[in-house]
Amino acid sequence: MKKLIDRVETVVDDACEGMALAHPHVVRFNREPRYLVRAAQVRPGKVALISGGGAGHEPLHGGFVGVGMLDAACPGEVFASPVPDQMEAAAQAADGGAGVAFVVKNYTGDVMNFDLASELLGASGVAAKTVLVADDVAVKDSAYTIGRRGVGATLFVERLAGAAAERGANLDEVVRIGEAAAAASRSMGMALTSCTVPAKGSPTFALGPDEIEIGIGIHGEAGRERRAMTSADDVLETLVSAVADDLALVRGERVIALTNGMGGTPLIELYLAHRHVARLLTDRGVTIARTLVGNYVTSLDMTGCSVSLMRVDDAMLALWDEPIETPALRWGR
Amino acid sequence: MKKLIDRVETVVDDACEGMALAHPHVVRFNREPRYLVRAAQVRPGKVALISGGGAGHEPLHGGFVGVGMLDAACPGEVFASPVPDQMEAAAQAADGGAGVAFVVKNYTGDVMNFDLASELLGASGVAAKTVLVADDVAVKDSAYTIGRRGVGATLFVERLAGAAAERGANLDEVVRIGEAAAAASRSMGMALTSCTVPAKGSPTFALGPDEIEIGIGIHGEAGRERRAMTSADDVLETLVSAVADDLALVRGERVIALTNGMGGTPLIELYLAHRHVARLLTDRGVTIARTLVGNYVTSLDMTGCSVSLMRVDDAMLALWDEPIETPALRWGR
Repeated sequence: MKKLIDRVETVVDDACEGMALAHPHVVRFNREPRYLVRAAQVRPGKVALISGGGAGHEPLHGGFVGVGMLDAACPGEVFASPVPDQMEAAAQAADGGAGVAFVVKNYTGDVMNFDLASELLGASGVAAKTVLVADDVAVKDSAYTIGRRGVGATLFVERLAGAAAERGANLDEVVRIGEAAAAASRSMGMALTSCTVPAKGSPTFALGPDEIEIGIGIHGEAGRERRAMTSADDVLETLVSAVADDLALVRGERVIALTNGMGGTPLIELYLAHRHVARLLTDRGVTIARTLVGNYVTSLDMTGCSVSLMRVDDAMLALWDEPIETPALRWGR
Repeated sequence: MKKLIDRVETVVDDACEGMALAHPHVVRFNREPRYLVRAAQVRPGKVALISGGGAGHEPLHGGFVGVGMLDAACPGEVFASPVPDQMEAAAQAADGGAGVAFVVKNYTGDVMNFDLASELLGASGVAAKTVLVADDVAVKDSAYTIGRRGVGATLFVERLAGAAAERGANLDEVVRIGEAAAAASRSMGMALTSCTVPAKGSPTFALGPDEIEIGIGIHGEAGRERRAMTSADDVLETLVSAVADDLALVRGERVIALTNGMGGTPLIELYLAHRHVARLLTDRGVTIARTLVGNYVTSLDMTGCSVSLMRVDDAMLALWDEPIETPALRWGR
C-alpha cells in the first residue's frame, strides 16, 4: 500500500484538519469528538442540517459543509460509522434553536447511531429528525444494509435540504424537501479496481485485469455481477438503464445528473463517461437540467464510476441554483 | 489496461464532447479542428486568452474555459502537442478584435506549434503574443524541454491573465499580468504510481511497491530521484522546501497554494497532504492567502501530488477573487 498518509491511526483526523486549513472561512474542525462545522457563527432560528458516516468518501460529507448545504459533518473512521457523541456534539455546536435534521445514508450502523443521537438530543430539548438516503438500485439488501444502500444521491439530498434550511425553512419543511429529493433519486455504480482501506493495507476485493464489478457499493460491497470489461459505452448503458428504469423516467421529464468517480478515476474518463450518460438520456427523451461530473461520493482510491439521477421540478431546480459555498461545491447566483 | 474509454483513437474527442455536454452554457466543442471555446458570444474588444497542450491533464485546459479564465483551449492527443491549425481556428473563433494571448507550457513541441500559430495569425492581421509557463523546479532540462517544464502554475497564469482580460485589459497588459504570475510561481510534483497512456496500454514507467519518484513530470518524465516511500510528512517537506526555496519566499510574504493531485489521487490524501503544506509554510512565516486542493493539473491516472505556490500581492489577489465560471473553477464575488 502506497498512500499519501502518515499513520493509519490518524488518517481521518489529518485529512479533516487539512480540509479546515484549506477552507478556513468555510469549515472548522473539532478533533474531540470529531466533527467539521461551519466556520461562520450559528444563525439563530436556522435549522441545522447535519450528516456523517464513515470516512473514505471524500468530499462527502465534510466537503459539503458550508452556506447552502450542511451545517456540520461527523466523519467516523474509514468506512465505519461515527458514534452518537460526535453527532450530539456537532448538533449542539450547530443548533440555532430550530432543530436538527440528520441526513443518514442507509447503513445499519449509521442508522442506529444517528437514532441514538436523536434520542440524546431529544432528552436535552433539541428536536432532531432524520432523512434516510437509500438510492442504490444495485442490490436490495447487502453486507451492511437492510434495504438499499445510500450512495450518490446523498449529495442531492444534502444540497436541496441545505438550500431550504438556508432560506429559513422550518424543521418539518427541511425534512420534507430532503425526503422528496431522496425519493426522486436513484444511483448505481461500478468498479474497475478495488479500494484499499489504510488500516487493512491491501485491496478490499480482487478483480482480474479485465474484470469489472457492476453495482459496487461505496465500501467495496459486492454488486450485481462481475463481468469482463468491454467499453465505457457498455458500462454506462448498464448503469443508466438500471437507474432510469428504476426511477421510471419517462419522455419529457427533467433530471439532475451526477456522473461520479469512485475516488481514483481521472476526469478525462468521467467526462467521456458523461458523454454516454447525456446521450442515453437524450435517447429516452429525458432532459438533463443540471450536471455534475467529478469525484464527489467516493470510495478511497477505487476506480470506476457511478451515475445518480434525480427527477426535478422547477422548485427543486430553484433550490439547486441557490448560492452555495462549501469546499467541494461553490457557486453564486 | 482497464479504463472507462471506448476506442483509444477517440478518447480525447469523446472526453471533450462529454465536457461540452456537461457544461453547455459554458463551453462548446469544435471537433475539426479540435478546440473548446466559450459557449457565450465573443465580446468585441476583449483580448482572447487561449491555451492548449497535450490532453491527459484534465481539467487543464478545457476545464478552465469560461468567464474569468480562458476563451478557448486546444487539446492535442494524449501527451502530444496540438497543431497550429487548432490554435489558429480557436483564435479566429474567440477573437474579439483585441488580439490573442497564448498561455503555453514550456515543452518543445508546444512552443514550436504556438509560435507557428502566432505567425499564421499575424499574417491574417490578428496580433498574437505568448506567455510561457516554466514553473517546475524539479529539473532544468528534460525529455521534452529546454529549460524548466510548465506544470501546475499554468492554472495561476490562466486565472490571473483571464481575470485581467475579462476586466478589459489590453493585450500587452494581459501578457504582462500572465508573465508576472508565471514569474511569481514555482511547482514540484511526485508520483506514487505511473500513468498509463491509452494508446500504449501499459504504464509509462515502473515503480516498485515501496518506491516513489520525486520531481516527476506531468507526462511521467523522470524527476530528481527515486526513493523509498516514507510518509506524507516527508514527501511534502521535500516538495514544499524545494518550491519555497526556489521562490526565495521570506517571512511575511503571502502565496496562493495549490495542493494538486496527479489525477488518480483521492481527496482524502490531498487534504492530508495539504495539512503539511499549510504547516510547513506557517513554519516559514509565509501566509497562504488562497488555497486550492484537488486534481487540477494531472497526468491521466497517475497517483501522487504536486505543490504549486504563487507569491501574491493585493492586486493579484483581487484578480484571483474576480467571478469565475468554468467547468473546473466556479465562484461568485
